[in-house]
Amino acid sequence: MSYVLFYSPGAASMAVHWMLLELGVPFETRLVDIDTGAQRSPEYLRLNPTGRVPTLLVDGAPRGESTALLMLLAERHPESGLAPLPGEPERAEWLEMMIYLANAVLPAMRGWFYADTDGEPEGAAAVRAFERRQIETSMDNLDRLLGDGRHYLVGNRLSTADFLAITLMRWTRNMPRPATTWPHLARYIERLRARPAFLDLNAREKLTEWQNAP
Amino acid sequence: MSYVLFYSPGAASMAVHWMLLELGVPFETRLVDIDTGAQRSPEYLRLNPTGRVPTLLVDGAPRGESTALLMLLAERHPESGLAPLPGEPERAEWLEMMIYLANAVLPAMRGWFYADTDGEPEGAAAVRAFERRQIETSMDNLDRLLGDGRHYLVGNRLSTADFLAITLMRWTRNMPRPATTWPHLARYIERLRARPAFLDLNAREKLTEWQNAP
Ligand SMILES: N[C@@H](CCC(=O)N[C@@H](CS)C(=O)NCC(=O)O)C(=O)O
Ligand SMILES: N[C@@H](CCC(=O)N[C@@H](CS)C(=O)NCC(=O)O)C(=O)O
Repeated sequence: MSYVLFYSPGAASMAVHWMLLELGVPFETRLVDIDTGAQRSPEYLRLNPTGRVPTLLVDGAPRGESTALLMLLAERHPESGLAPLPGEPERAEWLEMMIYLANAVLPAMRGWFYADTDGEPEGAAAVRAFERRQIETSMDNLDRLLGDGRHYLVGNRLSTADFLAITLMRWTRNMPRPATTWPHLARYIERLRARPAFLDLNAREKLTEWQNAP
Repeated sequence: MSYVLFYSPGAASMAVHWMLLELGVPFETRLVDIDTGAQRSPEYLRLNPTGRVPTLLVDGAPRGESTALLMLLAERHPESGLAPLPGEPERAEWLEMMIYLANAVLPAMRGWFYADTDGEPEGAAAVRAFERRQIETSMDNLDRLLGDGRHYLVGNRLSTADFLAITLMRWTRNMPRPATTWPHLARYIERLRARPAFLDLNAREKLTEWQNAP
């Protein structure tokens, strides 16, 4: 099994990068710096016509959509335990959470950050206000879920849902209401950020913000 | 295996209802009429705190998120062939398409239809203009994909992606640009709407619009 991850520091690719580190499998990375527009180069568009990161070459074939890549990696490495197996009691809960993050949280974040380029600049303020409301409603929901004391989003064990959720929560750090201001989310974020693979991930992506106090 | 589907005619539940019919498994249905606000009744909110349809009782346990339910049903009924199995060549493509529909198309539709209640009424026109652009970009992408002559979205065989895509495309029928105005989508829609299970589905949900000419 060979993996080559096209990533940009802190982007949606971060969830996949984290998972590859937790899996402990060999992989290579290629930097696609979205701040300089590298995602729109002809070479990158050939791999990913949407011009977005991540792309993962899976045994040479380019695949996109961070949520799908996490699910694919989980089933290619079932022994990792990073997703309940089909038929296991928490499988339905895991599927529902992955789709909730992909469907309710990720697109609202996209709208928040790309309102003026994915749409018309004159509508951007209204779009951002709308997306902010969806994001904060989602954070309310996730905080309520974690309020039962669980340590992880699904089945009280680390899963792909945590890599995706933490990547998304990180994006709120400069938003009007950062995820860390919700009490149960704060506790959850602190625990997940303490994982050695998360520290390694930040070092590899050269990220310094949004880490636990030493 | 027992299934009880809480649905509203033509809503996101339609994709799951269609799949249950194609599977040919026994199931019951309960009408939750969203036009009269039945999704906000205390009984329904106990099953689905988001107040949205569908909810599927799977062996008695309530589960939500249409995309997740399609994926769950596919793995509970692998013999149906309605999703490539893990390890099969088209598995990655299927995961990517399911997530693309859940991530890029479904939330944009939600924003289009619920701009003034999920957000502030004064921003609704700008939000709708934004969502319209995301929807039409997605339809461009799906039309381009189908332009290679394939009959189905994934691997040239019927899959859960088609139930979801057709349900979403149906919602465009009164939008400024209906899906049927894209040439390859028109051909695809016509083929899928001809399925006996789709006709049965429309009869059961008492839907009369958006069917093939007799
Ligand atoms: N649905 C995609 C979204 C990816 C996405 O929006 N990535 C952003 C960075 S977080 C990107 O590539 N932005 C650059 C651009 O759109 O030009 C996924 O989950 O992989
Ligand atoms: N992400 C959910 C969205 C479901 C959804 O938005 N359903 C709409 C009908 S298509 C609904 O329940 N609307 C009633 C409401 O929001 O009050 C899913 O895919 O199941």
